[in-house]
Amino acid sequence: MFFEGSEKKAEIIIDPSFGSLLELPVSFWENIVGLAKADILSSIDNEHCTAYLLSESSLFVWQHKVVILTCGLSTLIDSICALIDTVGSPNILGVTYQRKNEYLAHLQNSTFEQDIQVLRQKVPGSACRIGHLDTHHHYIFTSHSSVALPYQDNRYELLMYHISGPIAQYLTTADQSIEKIAQLLQLDKLFNGFQLDAHLFNPCGYSVNGIKGDEYFTIHITPQEKSSYVSIETNVDLHLQPINITAKLLALLQPQSWDIKAFNSDIQTGEIPENICLGHCFYSLKQGYNIQFSHYQQICSEVLTPEFM
Amino acid sequence: MFFEGSEKKAEIIIDPSFGSLLELPVSFWENIVGLAKADILSSIDNEHCTAYLLSESSLFVWQHKVVILTCGLSTLIDSICALIDTVGSPNILGVTYQRKNEYLAHLQNSTFEQDIQVLRQKVPGSACRIGHLDTHHHYIFTSHSSVALPYQDNRYELLMYHISGPIAQYLTTADQSIEKIAQLLQLDKLFNGFQLDAHLFNPCGYSVNGIKGDEYFTIHITPQEKSSYVSIETNVDLHLQPINITAKLLALLQPQSWDIKAFNSDIQTGEIPENICLGHCFYSLKQGYNIQFSHYQQICSEVLTPEFM
Repeated sequence: MFFEGSEKKAEIIIDPSFGSLLELPVSFWENIVGLAKADILSSIDNEHCTAYLLSESSLFVWQHKVVILTCGLSTLIDSICALIDTVGSPNILGVTYQRKNEYLAHLQNSTFEQDIQVLRQKVPGSACRIGHLDTHHHYIFTSHSSVALPYQDNRYELLMYHISGPIAQYLTTADQSIEKIAQLLQLDKLFNGFQLDAHLFNPCGYSVNGIKGDEYFTIHITPQEKSSYVSIETNVDLHLQPINITAKLLALLQPQSWDIKAFNSDIQTGEIPENICLGHCFYSLKQGYNIQFSHYQQICSEVLTPEFM
Repeated sequence: MFFEGSEKKAEIIIDPSFGSLLELPVSFWENIVGLAKADILSSIDNEHCTAYLLSESSLFVWQHKVVILTCGLSTLIDSICALIDTVGSPNILGVTYQRKNEYLAHLQNSTFEQDIQVLRQKVPGSACRIGHLDTHHHYIFTSHSSVALPYQDNRYELLMYHISGPIAQYLTTADQSIEKIAQLLQLDKLFNGFQLDAHLFNPCGYSVNGIKGDEYFTIHITPQEKSSYVSIETNVDLHLQPINITAKLLALLQPQSWDIKAFNSDIQTGEIPENICLGHCFYSLKQGYNIQFSHYQQICSEVLTPEFM
């Protein structure tokens, strides 16, 4: 019973002169996600965003931006390349592409290094690994951009490993419900007023997308006991929220270890379970990104240096 | 500049009725290690043991026991199978086969899981992983044995990652010498009275075998800056030594993290650098092995459960 929950992630920002991505038909996105070996299961939308729930995570489409996450053995790089080809490289303002070390990297269809060889044929960019190879590490490609990005692009990711406690236990039981999981995770408090779209996988696994205006969040749970993984990603400004979302989720899901990646955002601290920060990194890219990565374990701290490749 | 220092290791104990392994010619062992993609570089011997220094680590041969370690992209499983075939499965009293998570597992020619599928066709046995997939973990196969092993079989391994400090720096310089490294590592104090056989690799890397009576130790150093790794393995009874070998090597090489594996041996504590034990495991096998595994990082502790496969 193993499933690789760890996601490959991309954000693509296009030049408004291309037109609105929201006007592209569902069939277009079906084709795009199909290239990653994923299917569209359902969608929700508002005037700013369409959020697709995928068989392998999530796709968010705004007028001039796409965020896509795919897990398992998906081949996200193929989707990214097809999307860049459709929009045309000159219309690409920015691309970030990320991978986190997988539990079973040798099963993946490609390595990050191979992915960026392909990607660099479409858009020039820099890539690095943050963290040592023998522990939690994070790969990121960011395209070189000659123009300023059109708005503040922020993103916050909390990745939790080896969850425990009553909610973790519930998530592996046979008779779960979407409603009960939303209630256990207190989604109405954490993301008040968000329109939700959730899916339960068989035999286990849970995904939820949420949108409100141009804000989004997405949570994916791989509850399998020996390789459990929960990811949350959002562009919500966490410091404007009445609740410490990081602390709350850590308290609820009680992971053995967790990572936080923050793009143009601060890492939420305070009220979080007793922990050691095994490694942390802060660096700035000339494209306007401030990136932070920290790796924590339950119950000191190495400054990691980005290793550019 | 990457080299996979992490070793695959095997110990094979044979029935004395087969005869003495020391009587097999060097050409036999050349062929055995050749199957793992390694070459014999040099050797030393005494009346109990012949120690071969390999292009990819070490081979120790006693009358009725073999210990072999190979690193890089070596295919140790092929050597093990050929040796079992030569001796004959009924003459095998015990086999242990181990792998530690590699820095770049996807480059390996086989996974541990694949290896033991092959091995189990020769000798039945149990296999497990100790440690979570997303951090330091250790795989071990131990053969089922219907007879008691002929003597107390003990082994101690200290695996050091991301070494630092003056000795680490010296180990990456161009003009190293075997004598200077032995002096820096204080080998004459740590292993007093041992006959030594050492080799310096190009552009860097150091191996040394030592034997005294039926005791052995071997140290392999992969000093490459972003993926440095130093292993030491010995059957010396550490508690009978005038010096704490673990503490001394940790102080000299200043690793960011380290693992200790002990077979029928206690983990040396005391006087070691300030650290956290991120995970530890103790378990007993009915074949008569008590196995301990602990993973430490510089400056609490999870009890890990063996996951049998």
